[in-house]
Amino acid sequence: MFLKIFQNECLYFLKPNSFKGINKRNLRNRPDFTKNRYKVTRGNYNYLREDHINYFQTLLGYKRVIMDLSDLEKYNVDWYTQVRGCSSIVLKPKTTQEVSQILSFCNNQKLALCTQGGNTGVVGGCVPVFDEIIISTELMNDIISLDENSGVLVCQSGCILQNLDNFVAEKGLIIPLDLGAKGTCHIGGNVSTNAGGMRLVKYGNMHANVLGLEVVKSNGEIIDCLSTLKKDNTGYHLKHLFIGSEGTLGLVTKVALQCPPRPKYRNVAFLGLQNFSKVLKTYKLLKESLGEILSAIEVMDSTTMQFISEKNQQTSPIGEYPFYLMVETSGSNEEHDQHKLNRFFEKILTKGLVLNGVVASDAKQAGDIWSIRDNVSTGYKHCGAVFYYDISLPLQHYYTIVDIMKTRMGSKCEKVFGYGHLGDGNIHISIVMDEYSDELKNLAEPYIFEQVLALNGSISAEHGLGFMKAKYLNMVKSGNNVNLMKDLKTILDPHMILNPYKVIPEIK
Amino acid sequence: MFLKIFQNECLYFLKPNSFKGINKRNLRNRPDFTKNRYKVTRGNYNYLREDHINYFQTLLGYKRVIMDLSDLEKYNVDWYTQVRGCSSIVLKPKTTQEVSQILSFCNNQKLALCTQGGNTGVVGGCVPVFDEIIISTELMNDIISLDENSGVLVCQSGCILQNLDNFVAEKGLIIPLDLGAKGTCHIGGNVSTNAGGMRLVKYGNMHANVLGLEVVKSNGEIIDCLSTLKKDNTGYHLKHLFIGSEGTLGLVTKVALQCPPRPKYRNVAFLGLQNFSKVLKTYKLLKESLGEILSAIEVMDSTTMQFISEKNQQTSPIGEYPFYLMVETSGSNEEHDQHKLNRFFEKILTKGLVLNGVVASDAKQAGDIWSIRDNVSTGYKHCGAVFYYDISLPLQHYYTIVDIMKTRMGSKCEKVFGYGHLGDGNIHISIVMDEYSDELKNLAEPYIFEQVLALNGSISAEHGLGFMKAKYLNMVKSGNNVNLMKDLKTILDPHMILNPYKVIPEIK
Repeated sequence: MFLKIFQNECLYFLKPNSFKGINKRNLRNRPDFTKNRYKVTRGNYNYLREDHINYFQTLLGYKRVIMDLSDLEKYNVDWYTQVRGCSSIVLKPKTTQEVSQILSFCNNQKLALCTQGGNTGVVGGCVPVFDEIIISTELMNDIISLDENSGVLVCQSGCILQNLDNFVAEKGLIIPLDLGAKGTCHIGGNVSTNAGGMRLVKYGNMHANVLGLEVVKSNGEIIDCLSTLKKDNTGYHLKHLFIGSEGTLGLVTKVALQCPPRPKYRNVAFLGLQNFSKVLKTYKLLKESLGEILSAIEVMDSTTMQFISEKNQQTSPIGEYPFYLMVETSGSNEEHDQHKLNRFFEKILTKGLVLNGVVASDAKQAGDIWSIRDNVSTGYKHCGAVFYYDISLPLQHYYTIVDIMKTRMGSKCEKVFGYGHLGDGNIHISIVMDEYSDELKNLAEPYIFEQVLALNGSISAEHGLGFMKAKYLNMVKSGNNVNLMKDLKTILDPHMILNPYKVIPEIK
Repeated sequence: MFLKIFQNECLYFLKPNSFKGINKRNLRNRPDFTKNRYKVTRGNYNYLREDHINYFQTLLGYKRVIMDLSDLEKYNVDWYTQVRGCSSIVLKPKTTQEVSQILSFCNNQKLALCTQGGNTGVVGGCVPVFDEIIISTELMNDIISLDENSGVLVCQSGCILQNLDNFVAEKGLIIPLDLGAKGTCHIGGNVSTNAGGMRLVKYGNMHANVLGLEVVKSNGEIIDCLSTLKKDNTGYHLKHLFIGSEGTLGLVTKVALQCPPRPKYRNVAFLGLQNFSKVLKTYKLLKESLGEILSAIEVMDSTTMQFISEKNQQTSPIGEYPFYLMVETSGSNEEHDQHKLNRFFEKILTKGLVLNGVVASDAKQAGDIWSIRDNVSTGYKHCGAVFYYDISLPLQHYYTIVDIMKTRMGSKCEKVFGYGHLGDGNIHISIVMDEYSDELKNLAEPYIFEQVLALNGSISAEHGLGFMKAKYLNMVKSGNNVNLMKDLKTILDPHMILNPYKVIPEIK
């Protein structure tokens, strides 16, 4: 009985009515299977058998091998309901040793795997495409050590970002990474996707902040580069192989992170501007005037604000304007920071760059302003479907792509809007529609990517390629680069069991 | 005749008296051949033949193929006179295409290569061990572009660091890297060794600051990852493979570098302290009080200062103390920075942490203070021999290693001293002696490395392994890590023509 069930790749969605509590909305939101919608061919992997399950249950115990249909749903569908796998098993290791044994076993048995942290990715990178075994890092959430002098935190990869920040905050430190998904995402996922977020403009990306990693290779070998030193130039810098390779080269089990001193004083301002040209001029002044205390520069257009108002019932604290800037400063001297900010305001008002603005007077107000930005993506939960693009562009073309896509989509969709990390040249473009349609998809893609490349941008600034963009790899990288990627995949994961169908096109 | 000469690996030093202008001092300083001193076995490479030379001369012209004995000397001996190769040819390509053709040819002919930038390395990484063909990046010194808005500089790998900084300074930007060797070292060498230096504490290492690279593989293939975007998460982050791999995986031909705004105001202070415990306490206060404007924290002991006085005729501006701290702040508001610094001085004086101190009152004085630190290594030119170690340690053990080595070496050497980048946990230890001796070498090594590892440190903080430390790779990295390094070497340089005998022990 088991065998028959598990050889069926799409087990649990065959009888959707068997799920309790699924209302019409949820059903509409649940996407078609990835393999059907995107016409993928299953790799030459073995199917899960009863003896495999026995092995996992013996290794982890029954409670850490999840096979209950109602529990599997959330692991098989991504947050943005773009992709839907049909895995019938989730494994929840607690230790590196267990991960090593699982990978070694799956490598020998040619069983494909998909590692999942908080399942907050937006390119289908951490959800299975077919029946890949899901390894969840949920229970790998130990904080191992924190050196208060050096600010080095060592933890397991399943720690939730927000929990880590709360933990180090007590010691006067800050996690250099800050994302809207911080309450859910895992640090291992952040590392594997080279996550960016709000504070990248101040602290840099994961390549800059990760001091060390422990990683398990597909064959179960443990690669220990868990250095806690700020400088270590002995041998190749292996950890960087696993930062941003989206779980396709190894499974990150531990992370050593450099945590800077937590800024004592923070100011958050929310500004309304007339057009994007003034946004750019204000940005230049911001850099000149606020220099080293500038910790975030976010922009959003009026359509984004309208979307937030409609979906999240949050309104602009300063009324309606074509563009909004959110500016955060973080420094060690309140008086100095305030003085710098005031001088900046004088300048932008004198120059007529900003129409209106507000500065948070306390931590609660600052939190309220940030929540506007943090919760953009929460609104997607209340949409029929969203095409969501994460683009990097030279600043002079930053907003051009939104106008291009508005023209392209016309009235065929509900909304097209753009918002993002102006300080990093990174814009997120959302195309919202009542329900998913191939026609709209084909209208948007690959057109948007072609336009981005023509403007010398990147089609994935911070989200990675995952499943959704893997097919464009050959469009954005030269043959030599793709071949080197394939060579790396071959030495690290010769049976290609790690997160197949993601990042790198199939290796022939 | 040519053939006979070039098959002799040690051509030009067979008749040292044939060199003009070599005085007794220089002769004493010129080390024995690396292959003899360190008993290395030559790899299975072909010897240079006349037809090879013809190929190079046709490709580059006669002037860019250096074979004159008197010109070869400086390329065969390192700056610290620790190593000495016997290459009989230096090639000076100007373009990526020429590099590609050279590498492709050498790969087919199984000719070993050694890439050399400014020849300022201190672990014998950029000087041939035997008769490797030297590729000098001296003529690859074009600045390709500078985007003033984003601060992205693109240049060829042979640009001298100081020249780049002078160039971007005119546009209000700064190169995030600053080394004592800045007037000579090439940016390509900085990238290949993941060079650290004074400003790492503020701006991070090369992994944090390099946006893109162009690299030529051993087979001549060009890997173009010359992105100029701050964020680009499309595919594996290949550039990081070549940062810090010391020219053994590819030859860096172009670099895209993120240049931050040049701080408008700089303060430099020079402090005298009683003991290392007070150094650490002062360091903690420095981080708390000066926060985001702190751009360098350098420490040196009294023996280092004595060495500088003797060799460079520079004296401490504040008299003699057991320890010295050099502190630099860089900010956007002179008044604020000065205010922060004054408050810091009040605190350290109240707490009795510092015995004396001086703050530079103008740029010239600041330069004078920095020149003390910059010129430590200049003194080595006037020593018989120096063993020079670049160590990373947890802060509480930072100076322990100097005491350990003083005890170990006793009166058998002239001096043992320590100085370095306190903010990064990076100390440089120098053991100075009248002339090189195997006995002293064996007394120092591997003892110092064993002690460093016992203190959870790194035996190479910022200088790399090069030739001098390659033999310790197996001591500092696990078998799995070394095997992965070998796998990387195999896919990128299967004939092992790139910088052999360096970083990675011979692959069997």
